[in-house]
Amino acid sequence: MPATIIDGKAIAAAVTSALAEEVSQLKQQNLQPGLAVVLIGSDPASQVYVNTKVKTCEKLGIYSEKHLLPEDASMNDVLALIDQLNCDPKIHGILVQSPPPPQIDEEAVVAAIDPAKDVDCFHAENVGKMLIGKTDGFFPCTPYGVMELMAQSGIDPAGKHAVVVGRSNIVGKPMMALLIQKCKGANATVTVVHSRTKNLPELTRQGDILIAAIGKPEFVTADMVKDGAVVIDVGINRVEAPDTPKGYRLCGDVKFDEVAPKASFITKVPGGVGPMTIAMLMRNAVKACKMQNHIEIR
Amino acid sequence: MPATIIDGKAIAAAVTSALAEEVSQLKQQNLQPGLAVVLIGSDPASQVYVNTKVKTCEKLGIYSEKHLLPEDASMNDVLALIDQLNCDPKIHGILVQSPPPPQIDEEAVVAAIDPAKDVDCFHAENVGKMLIGKTDGFFPCTPYGVMELMAQSGIDPAGKHAVVVGRSNIVGKPMMALLIQKCKGANATVTVVHSRTKNLPELTRQGDILIAAIGKPEFVTADMVKDGAVVIDVGINRVEAPDTPKGYRLCGDVKFDEVAPKASFITKVPGGVGPMTIAMLMRNAVKACKMQNHIEIR
Repeated sequence: MPATIIDGKAIAAAVTSALAEEVSQLKQQNLQPGLAVVLIGSDPASQVYVNTKVKTCEKLGIYSEKHLLPEDASMNDVLALIDQLNCDPKIHGILVQSPPPPQIDEEAVVAAIDPAKDVDCFHAENVGKMLIGKTDGFFPCTPYGVMELMAQSGIDPAGKHAVVVGRSNIVGKPMMALLIQKCKGANATVTVVHSRTKNLPELTRQGDILIAAIGKPEFVTADMVKDGAVVIDVGINRVEAPDTPKGYRLCGDVKFDEVAPKASFITKVPGGVGPMTIAMLMRNAVKACKMQNHIEIR
Repeated sequence: MPATIIDGKAIAAAVTSALAEEVSQLKQQNLQPGLAVVLIGSDPASQVYVNTKVKTCEKLGIYSEKHLLPEDASMNDVLALIDQLNCDPKIHGILVQSPPPPQIDEEAVVAAIDPAKDVDCFHAENVGKMLIGKTDGFFPCTPYGVMELMAQSGIDPAGKHAVVVGRSNIVGKPMMALLIQKCKGANATVTVVHSRTKNLPELTRQGDILIAAIGKPEFVTADMVKDGAVVIDVGINRVEAPDTPKGYRLCGDVKFDEVAPKASFITKVPGGVGPMTIAMLMRNAVKACKMQNHIEIR
């Protein structure tokens, strides 16, 4: 039986449409979630990301502000802006588009964001809450999106062996933290493999759930995958493709064509995890608004 | 070849003796690390733990204060004391002995401790820093002690498969966080197994390093252990022993007698991880003093 393709676009659309409903209910209580997006410099890719976030806010009825700082902005400029946004009651979520220019200490900027407004879940306090299993912080958008993809596809990680390929702070480590929790939708046995792992294919082959987040194009091949595994591809890589108009194509960390026939469920790149990241950011922004207004979280 | 017994008492003694030296150097700069231990109520086991901590402080030249609150202390009483200790420049580390009486919300008490003085590493901010890989917080004493036991025994986890049995906030999860880091002394491939794991013995048998922290007496038997594995037993369980004067004996989570012949290195209970926990607490207290006085950490 061919693998079921997990349609990230459709699931993300369902998430955002539920959020739009929530936002309209909040407006009846004279509340509107507000997100501030900070962009330092003029990196074209970052501009695209920021604009997508702002447009998605508009679609959902979330108030948004785009703050553009010049390429040569100082740490003081950035911290002053963060301070102002921390104190602004219209703003419930703050994110600083990564990567900032070299004179900016990204860690210090993240640490300056009020944890209650840290909708990216990059602040240590929210990361810690996630690991401890507390739900009054935030979950980082991409791993949170992976959990939601599975939940919406009827995949329960409980008791299953989830193998995470990659140990980044953005995906691998939080993925492990979310999967290991003693709670509904988690309860997986978790293995994390990475660049230093010796017998990597032997371990990935044990994964009932295999999550690829190592940032290497088509790294996961068919021989590394268990028959019937759920395969989630978090990678987005550009590879040269001289025959295409753009000169490159996007691919994931999984060699889709050969892995798909072995998998029970699989995501595509693009159209898999990608759309979920922004949907979960919006969910975090709505949650932030509710928490700051002492409204119960569903 | 029989397993090398990792002597936790001896390694802990080496750690504390190096700390005593550091403390005496700090005193030459008119600095003395100070630890406040808060005990609410009169649980006899907690009293023993608290007294051991205070005595170890005395031995190392660390200033210590024991704060005893009555069994019926209110949250306000506890928070007022924490507040006072947070502001006290003599005190660099604060710990509240667990478990507090039922009217006390332990999470809220921990959250009230200044993260810079949270030498137990229970505060979410320090937990998050640990997961992210930052070293300007603290590591929780027991998992930190396990890492030190391995380091002092010449065991490098890099590239090895470490299997952690148990996913508690005190041991299992931070153990996983410390082992997975991209840094010297870590870099392990990590698997965490727990009560919901289906094929547990199959997974523990893959561990080059097996860390038992599930809180079940003699849970790990010989058939669950790989030949030549490093076996670290974090469990301390009381089991009935009617023939003994106390009526009970202490044992770990590992069936020592049958596992030892298969292991390359193994810890005993007692005398293994136990003594390390308090040694690492002392190291955290000294680190806290240095950080609060802007002295470089070695």
